[in-house]
Amino acid sequence: MKPQFTPDFQKAGGLVTAVTVDADDGQVLMVAYMNDEAFRLTLETGKVHYYSRTRKKLWKKGESSGNMQELVELRVGCELDSVLVRVRQRGPACHQGYRTCFFRTVKADGSLETIGERLMTPEQMYGGKP
Amino acid sequence: MKPQFTPDFQKAGGLVTAVTVDADDGQVLMVAYMNDEAFRLTLETGKVHYYSRTRKKLWKKGESSGNMQELVELRVGCELDSVLVRVRQRGPACHQGYRTCFFRTVKADGSLETIGERLMTPEQMYGGKP
Repeated sequence: MKPQFTPDFQKAGGLVTAVTVDADDGQVLMVAYMNDEAFRLTLETGKVHYYSRTRKKLWKKGESSGNMQELVELRVGCELDSVLVRVRQRGPACHQGYRTCFFRTVKADGSLETIGERLMTPEQMYGGKP
Repeated sequence: MKPQFTPDFQKAGGLVTAVTVDADDGQVLMVAYMNDEAFRLTLETGKVHYYSRTRKKLWKKGESSGNMQELVELRVGCELDSVLVRVRQRGPACHQGYRTCFFRTVKADGSLETIGERLMTPEQMYGGKP
């Protein structure tokens, strides 16, 4: 049996950076972080899990919104401290209801402009839950 | 004049996460980090700069390899602690000579398989320099 791959969780305090893209069109949907448990659960269950740096806890994507991510393929960065997660995304990836979290561009004058597609309002996503 | 956008550098110790993609086909080339100086220099010069967590210093992409990144567009993540950098990449983005740093996939048995396109050898890129 070939050696099992383990990312380098030590480089950044137990986390690797995860870039999540739509498996069909390659669009970057979000960037988040995985600890070893989130990484293992993602591979074992086929549902993408992250670790929330803000809430300091494991986070199954879509657990409150229903907008889950089905794992299609996982790639690893050259230094083993990042992963590229190819997914099928149900609904918006962004908690603000946009397809992607990167829905704003920085204009030449330094201001922000919304360019992304809003699929749902947060109220539609979370039904008034916080 | 509209308010100038400033990313949230405080959330992760002075750095934001930067996901860099090819502006033409959207392929994810690399993930790295920017401090405020790298962010400012990227916008001012149109050449992408990062902050190396390992070397703890500012890093102009391509400064040793010649494989620079021309900024095409910069987008910002919903929580302002990450950016999506759309670039024209000269040569390989990866220091190992691959077009993208994400040149290996995790197979079902947990082992790694190289699937990416190697454009140059490290010797061709760095000419024997460390």
